Amino acid sequence: MSRVAYVNGRYLPHREASVHVEDRGFQFADGVYEVIAVKNGSFVDEAPHLARLRRSLGEMRMTAPMSDAALKSVMRETVRRNRVKDGILYLQVTRGSAPRDFAFPKGAKPSLIMTARAQKPLDPRIFSEGVAVVTLPDIRWARPDIKSVALLPNALAKQRAKEAGAYEAWQVDRDGNVTEGTSSNAWIVTAKNEIVTRKADNAILNGVTRQMLLKLSAEAGLKMSERPFSVAEAKDAREAFLTSTTNFVVPIVRIDDAKVGEGRPGPLAQRLRALYAAHAASDAAGNAP
Amino acid sequence: MSRVAYVNGRYLPHREASVHVEDRGFQFADGVYEVIAVKNGSFVDEAPHLARLRRSLGEMRMTAPMSDAALKSVMRETVRRNRVKDGILYLQVTRGSAPRDFAFPKGAKPSLIMTARAQKPLDPRIFSEGVAVVTLPDIRWARPDIKSVALLPNALAKQRAKEAGAYEAWQVDRDGNVTEGTSSNAWIVTAKNEIVTRKADNAILNGVTRQMLLKLSAEAGLKMSERPFSVAEAKDAREAFLTSTTNFVVPIVRIDDAKVGEGRPGPLAQRLRALYAAHAASDAAGNAP
Repeated sequence: MSRVAYVNGRYLPHREASVHVEDRGFQFADGVYEVIAVKNGSFVDEAPHLARLRRSLGEMRMTAPMSDAALKSVMRETVRRNRVKDGILYLQVTRGSAPRDFAFPKGAKPSLIMTARAQKPLDPRIFSEGVAVVTLPDIRWARPDIKSVALLPNALAKQRAKEAGAYEAWQVDRDGNVTEGTSSNAWIVTAKNEIVTRKADNAILNGVTRQMLLKLSAEAGLKMSERPFSVAEAKDAREAFLTSTTNFVVPIVRIDDAKVGEGRPGPLAQRLRALYAAHAASDAAGNAP
Repeated sequence: MSRVAYVNGRYLPHREASVHVEDRGFQFADGVYEVIAVKNGSFVDEAPHLARLRRSLGEMRMTAPMSDAALKSVMRETVRRNRVKDGILYLQVTRGSAPRDFAFPKGAKPSLIMTARAQKPLDPRIFSEGVAVVTLPDIRWARPDIKSVALLPNALAKQRAKEAGAYEAWQVDRDGNVTEGTSSNAWIVTAKNEIVTRKADNAILNGVTRQMLLKLSAEAGLKMSERPFSVAEAKDAREAFLTSTTNFVVPIVRIDDAKVGEGRPGPLAQRLRALYAAHAASDAAGNAP
């Protein structure tokens, strides 16, 4: 079956899905995006993803391309036309296409593109054995809380992680504290079973899985703390894990050359993964068309 | 006459010039660019622009899309087909189009696009009256020395300058020193007639006009210093100016609310502008096909 992409009002064969070379997303990274998980044909955590999209647009002083209702309708149609049962929807909004000039163009219409693809479940060993991360200096701009497509440093860091045989790179600020992964949030569990993740300030993207997990953990009566943690603290932690839309919760068993805990996925990461998976399934079911 | 763009091997009508929505330039800002001035149908400082392009590609670990000789040939053809006498050539290389994944794609072919356009000379009052700049925190990533398309912070800052009635924004690092403009390098002239611009470290783009001006000034026996300067020092300076490929040398007469010197373009800025204009004309003449 051939894939279809939504591009500025039209559903096009994937290979014909293109934007103008003067689209500001291409020339200035002047755009924002969301990735939303699709489960059993329905979206997981659609509302918080759309709320975050609105926030990103607001911080960028960009106009929304259409109402939330219209956006939802295009999202569903894109998933439907691609017959995605389990996978992801990718959505990108840019400030539009205009003759090249750094300042905002007058009267440009925002571009909206969407793609959807099926995704095989992750290799189960990722959960049974855990993954490694490497730490790298966080060299990104000062506003990673905006989910912009200015992802070059993230791409460079992810590539370095891959070449080091790691699953993800944890980025580290000037104070030696972990900010987040290149496409995931970072968590540890202390010796006192306190679950720690950085507060969602300007230095990190407030992941939707992160937000949901904080809520679910609180409901389950687990000890949570939103505060910075250092690389040293992470290496000494009882457990570590990462969260993202496509990964849910993945246990980390190695940070650089240090084994985390016993070098095996920890019980809290597994419990949180189960909590989130249950939430995702029920949320998707509630979102069914 | 209709404009033509070069896109991955083809010369296309401008409105049809497009790249795939999965081009990494669009989704990850994973690309680099150059803007080269065209004077009398020929390129100004072509060699240093191409040298810098090679450097950007190298720092990004990207493959060049073609040899320098082939690149030059496409540049000339793009200018020719657009009948540009005086204007600019824009050239962008990305890591190519591939299914979305942060790490580098295997076997993707780099994308190469070029556009050219005539440009009217700048309003002469810019030189006779000078321009204003505003200062803003430098919130960019740690590698502005790479001429990447991750230009979102630059676009946001330029827009703020425009709304403040200024021509450019000077970005300021954590130490209170000016790094550079959003699309230009920053210079001052001290009370002792020392011409100062920041050293080309990782914090700034090493502008081609900047490089040439340093050379031309040295040849003219002017006192130059490559060192950081603070906003306070700039406000107290005798003169200030900016340099870029499209602006050559533009005098600055106001920084935020402070008048620079007498509030009129200074003699050294004018002299450097004349030096560079003469160089540009002779360089373009030497480059004539």
